[in-house]
Amino acid sequence: MIDVGIVGGSGYTGGELLRLLANHSGSRVELVTSRRLAGKPISSVHPHVKGLYSLNFEAPLAREVAERCDIVFTAVPHGMAMDWVPELLDAGSKVVDLSSDYRLSTEVFERTYGIKHRAPRESIFGLTELHPEVAGAKLVGNPGCYPTGATLAVAPLANAGLVDRVVFDSKSGISGAGAEPTETSHYPNMAENVIPYRLTNHRHVPEIRQELTRLSPEIKINFTPHVIPSVRGILTTAHVFVKEGSIEKIQDTMAIEEIYRNFYRNAHFIRLNDSMPRLSSVRGSNFCDIYFEVEKGSDRLVVISAIDNLVKGASGQAIQNMNLMSGQDERTGLWIPGLAP
Amino acid sequence: MIDVGIVGGSGYTGGELLRLLANHSGSRVELVTSRRLAGKPISSVHPHVKGLYSLNFEAPLAREVAERCDIVFTAVPHGMAMDWVPELLDAGSKVVDLSSDYRLSTEVFERTYGIKHRAPRESIFGLTELHPEVAGAKLVGNPGCYPTGATLAVAPLANAGLVDRVVFDSKSGISGAGAEPTETSHYPNMAENVIPYRLTNHRHVPEIRQELTRLSPEIKINFTPHVIPSVRGILTTAHVFVKEGSIEKIQDTMAIEEIYRNFYRNAHFIRLNDSMPRLSSVRGSNFCDIYFEVEKGSDRLVVISAIDNLVKGASGQAIQNMNLMSGQDERTGLWIPGLAP
Amino acid sequence: MIDVGIVGGSGYTGGELLRLLANHSGSRVELVTSRRLAGKPISSVHPHVKGLYSLNFEAPLAREVAERCDIVFTAVPHGMAMDWVPELLDAGSKVVDLSSDYRLSTEVFERTYGIKHRAPRESIFGLTELHPEVAGAKLVGNPGCYPTGATLAVAPLANAGLVDRVVFDSKSGISGAGAEPTETSHYPNMAENVIPYRLTNHRHVPEIRQELTRLSPEIKINFTPHVIPSVRGILTTAHVFVKEGSIEKIQDTMAIEEIYRNFYRNAHFIRLNDSMPRLSSVRGSNFCDIYFEVEKGSDRLVVISAIDNLVKGASGQAIQNMNLMSGQDERTGLWIPGLAP
Amino acid sequence: MIDVGIVGGSGYTGGELLRLLANHSGSRVELVTSRRLAGKPISSVHPHVKGLYSLNFEAPLAREVAERCDIVFTAVPHGMAMDWVPELLDAGSKVVDLSSDYRLSTEVFERTYGIKHRAPRESIFGLTELHPEVAGAKLVGNPGCYPTGATLAVAPLANAGLVDRVVFDSKSGISGAGAEPTETSHYPNMAENVIPYRLTNHRHVPEIRQELTRLSPEIKINFTPHVIPSVRGILTTAHVFVKEGSIEKIQDTMAIEEIYRNFYRNAHFIRLNDSMPRLSSVRGSNFCDIYFEVEKGSDRLVVISAIDNLVKGASGQAIQNMNLMSGQDERTGLWIPGLAP
Repeated sequence: MIDVGIVGGSGYTGGELLRLLANHSGSRVELVTSRRLAGKPISSVHPHVKGLYSLNFEAPLAREVAERCDIVFTAVPHGMAMDWVPELLDAGSKVVDLSSDYRLSTEVFERTYGIKHRAPRESIFGLTELHPEVAGAKLVGNPGCYPTGATLAVAPLANAGLVDRVVFDSKSGISGAGAEPTETSHYPNMAENVIPYRLTNHRHVPEIRQELTRLSPEIKINFTPHVIPSVRGILTTAHVFVKEGSIEKIQDTMAIEEIYRNFYRNAHFIRLNDSMPRLSSVRGSNFCDIYFEVEKGSDRLVVISAIDNLVKGASGQAIQNMNLMSGQDERTGLWIPGLAP
Repeated sequence: MIDVGIVGGSGYTGGELLRLLANHSGSRVELVTSRRLAGKPISSVHPHVKGLYSLNFEAPLAREVAERCDIVFTAVPHGMAMDWVPELLDAGSKVVDLSSDYRLSTEVFERTYGIKHRAPRESIFGLTELHPEVAGAKLVGNPGCYPTGATLAVAPLANAGLVDRVVFDSKSGISGAGAEPTETSHYPNMAENVIPYRLTNHRHVPEIRQELTRLSPEIKINFTPHVIPSVRGILTTAHVFVKEGSIEKIQDTMAIEEIYRNFYRNAHFIRLNDSMPRLSSVRGSNFCDIYFEVEKGSDRLVVISAIDNLVKGASGQAIQNMNLMSGQDERTGLWIPGLAP
Repeated sequence: MIDVGIVGGSGYTGGELLRLLANHSGSRVELVTSRRLAGKPISSVHPHVKGLYSLNFEAPLAREVAERCDIVFTAVPHGMAMDWVPELLDAGSKVVDLSSDYRLSTEVFERTYGIKHRAPRESIFGLTELHPEVAGAKLVGNPGCYPTGATLAVAPLANAGLVDRVVFDSKSGISGAGAEPTETSHYPNMAENVIPYRLTNHRHVPEIRQELTRLSPEIKINFTPHVIPSVRGILTTAHVFVKEGSIEKIQDTMAIEEIYRNFYRNAHFIRLNDSMPRLSSVRGSNFCDIYFEVEKGSDRLVVISAIDNLVKGASGQAIQNMNLMSGQDERTGLWIPGLAP
Repeated sequence: MIDVGIVGGSGYTGGELLRLLANHSGSRVELVTSRRLAGKPISSVHPHVKGLYSLNFEAPLAREVAERCDIVFTAVPHGMAMDWVPELLDAGSKVVDLSSDYRLSTEVFERTYGIKHRAPRESIFGLTELHPEVAGAKLVGNPGCYPTGATLAVAPLANAGLVDRVVFDSKSGISGAGAEPTETSHYPNMAENVIPYRLTNHRHVPEIRQELTRLSPEIKINFTPHVIPSVRGILTTAHVFVKEGSIEKIQDTMAIEEIYRNFYRNAHFIRLNDSMPRLSSVRGSNFCDIYFEVEKGSDRLVVISAIDNLVKGASGQAIQNMNLMSGQDERTGLWIPGLAP
């Protein structure tokens, strides 16, 4: 039984960590921080966990957090985790950081986010299906939601050296934009609509590029995100264009399937589907469902992946990382079906 | 051809006036005011009317508005119309006020809204189906959205002296809460939910009471509003309990229908349905669809009314009032079907 | 560890039993029946449980089901459970019936459903908060979704003898209508709409009446259901009118709250809220959230209850019954938070 | 004033023709056919037009239709228009066919739809922005919904010879699938989801290819459609990859904009946006809103187009064609703003 802390627990990822940890047999939540809400019951912000916790928000210093917790989730905004992480690590906690502060090389981080990194540390990119070395890590940078769905969709093909270019067209539920009301999240703007944004320069592109070029250095990547009138879920349509010499190869659907099965043979949370993935099948769960079809006689195959952006795309994956870092089965607390319908 | 002004034209009711007036053969929009947006094209806030108007927002004084316009719609927040109306009237404009400032007696207004009325004026409650005297009015207080749907649903029965008590349970689209993002309008809060609010003391109750007690002084009224995950529309479920002596009477469905048909024989925008009203049938239109069923052997009948809160519940009804005040057919610019599906 | 069978497992309640039982520590699913789908993997219909079960649908006779299972959930349509239950009971299984066949007295059942009951048996109405005798039952009639939310909202007040009349205005997610596409469930008909139906004579009324008149024989009950554009959840607005002598009494909010707290002091799944219940707080969970407000100086108080129609309103409550019937903690497998947002 | 007939008027495109023609000053609806519903009021299926028409469905022969109508809209399923069109033309009517029977060359039609064309006729592809020759046509094949949004998004760039490849990723409201309830349109399946389908071989591809290769013979085209939880609207994300020599050229945003402005200088219904198109801006209207962004230093630019699939993607465009074919201003009856919010 390990003691867990959540730093910055008032947002959606905080609420989701609480939801999932409520049924995690190998850990208990020791503290949840929020400077703004210190002293208030966590159920005042997260009414869904009412009755399951009797915790109040606290506002302890990093050292106290580290003293009381074996593992800490930092669920603070981008650029602020770096103010917590060094002290937590130095005081002996392990850390899973849900912000973007420890996902990229310092150089790429600074270029992407336009701020100086005040506390670079060695970290592992916590996409466990591609990074088994998470098991030995002290600090894990938990992947962004889009990069999780996009990378998992295409990694086996990239690894097989087939891919020339991928055009990722992603559709995300609006919960990815957080708990704060905005112009975009205003119901009359979002309902009966679909909103493309950052058509060509979303901040998650460098994460996707980092992971896929590790597997296939020359791969070309384009990415455009959209929000759809859905609360949860990311469905990614990956338009994969293969290298000139590979057109014939991809016409053999069974061979492609074999590439996926083999690549993910140890990945509990990847489900290869023989029908179209549904967001409801992964809703509230840590699964990533994958499906593909080949365009007959063409250089394109289309891969579809579906995840819950708040689970496999954030808090669930964070717990998956925690499980591995603490020597538990990666499924602990996460082996739950999707909420369908 | 009359010249029309819209004071406070950046919100939903302003946008809706522009949408409807774009196809109104008897008027033209002379000006649209917004202090905040003065100088900007109206399509910057209302992209749906792009190409149909070449107006910019302006910030003129009341006198100038009155000089340039025959009729003015004041679409400003409650408590602010009273700063425009006197000067507009004095300078010779007619006014349809979409705020609540001129719907109630001064006394009831002040009690309901908790503010002093700075400029009481004689006005007509602009529910034209009950107030033909709108035709001669200089100032009309355009009814609230809930009171429109609720009053129209029950007025014939109240007028027939049948009703002991009505429990109005209303379901409104979220656009009724305005264009400003809020906690309630935040997509993840509103989607897959239904939110009751002001369970017992909504500010629209006095309007409903004012209108129905005119027809039936002893009538008891209860009202509870809800927002539903819909952009437009109000569906009102009126649980009508009849007086002890009337139970037998209401068992005759044909007689009840006759009461409605007779009461609304001149009302172009009331459609008595023989099947359940749909919000899509009235969406974008000025119709109020009505349907009822009697509980066998009981003292209850259930009346359902459906309107578009932004049209019959606001801007459409305002234009209906304008039509009558300016001697035009009340259907001018409003004789359009609902947007279904 | 008990062996569980699901008879009629291809619908939403079957899928939901599978979802919840996947994390139930005191039972295992032995079989799932479907004549139509016999031989197919259950994940072909329920892709959300893929990877968590390796079962195929089967089509065994009742006797075989009883031999292999300690407890059986009958999740077949109304009027068909009675063809399974006698044999299951006679062969020694306990049964939780999710249809309406064993909720009402035979006489009321036959009047309500217009069919002859072919196999009356002694059963307990499985609203455990009101029926602790479930613990000793062999056969439980699992309550309907509307009656669950409605009865729990008002039972404490009825029990206190305060209530003259209740008008239940319920709003349900469309999943309550089942997995089969219909006119009503057609997306363009349901989206951006709210659909009242069976305004005065829904089949669930007799269940509500049965339960509330047990507590307060003279109580008057009216009920009107609606479907809203939401997949899951029932929010019930109970307009409670108290007896003439009780108006003053209900003005004391603390006293009313005390009545609720006391009545539900042992009910794990009832949460009294101090803010408006949200469907997301109970989504996927077995909780029933309750909130109320008193209309100042009036005879009305408004009680709001929120449940997930497929969990507390169906499969979760069925498991709660199973837990009690098999001597387990009623929370086993059900002590999970809502899926919010 | 011309007399108009609608053959096959019970579906969504029929209802939409009725909605729009109700406010068309240059025509009147003479008849609406439906074999199944002959004799019933059209408002029994289309309650939104109740009060605006007093027509019943009829079931006349083609000859009678032609005798009574100057122009006929055939809104029957694919493969059935060819049974009406020859007789209508021979008897002197003009025809706008909303099915796919007259959009493609006979050869491509037969290959795409897998059926023999029983009555080929000379026809014009009714995308008026690219086919001014519609004005002189007797028979127009009204374009499919996806081809309309996709072709208009990219035609100017194709025409300028810039494009190597386009990947169209389209998101459509579910009304495109028609009025008949299906697995996909079942609310619990569609809500909170996004459903890709026919990932690589949708039947609309040949229309897109036909139009774009006319402008740029070597262009490569890929297309994947999705349905989103929205009733109306198609938003198309066109990932445009330019020819090697054109990368520098597209970095000049103003030049690209000029290409669009010039190409569409006479197109009333094309609006070039300087902010992201919203489905609500075009909802219920005949506009096509277009926006683009260039990926810095890359060979990609992303073009977004938004239409209402039932208006510019079907019935509105059909009326636009009728207007031109009958010598009216193409805006007649269509110069209406979008329904926002």
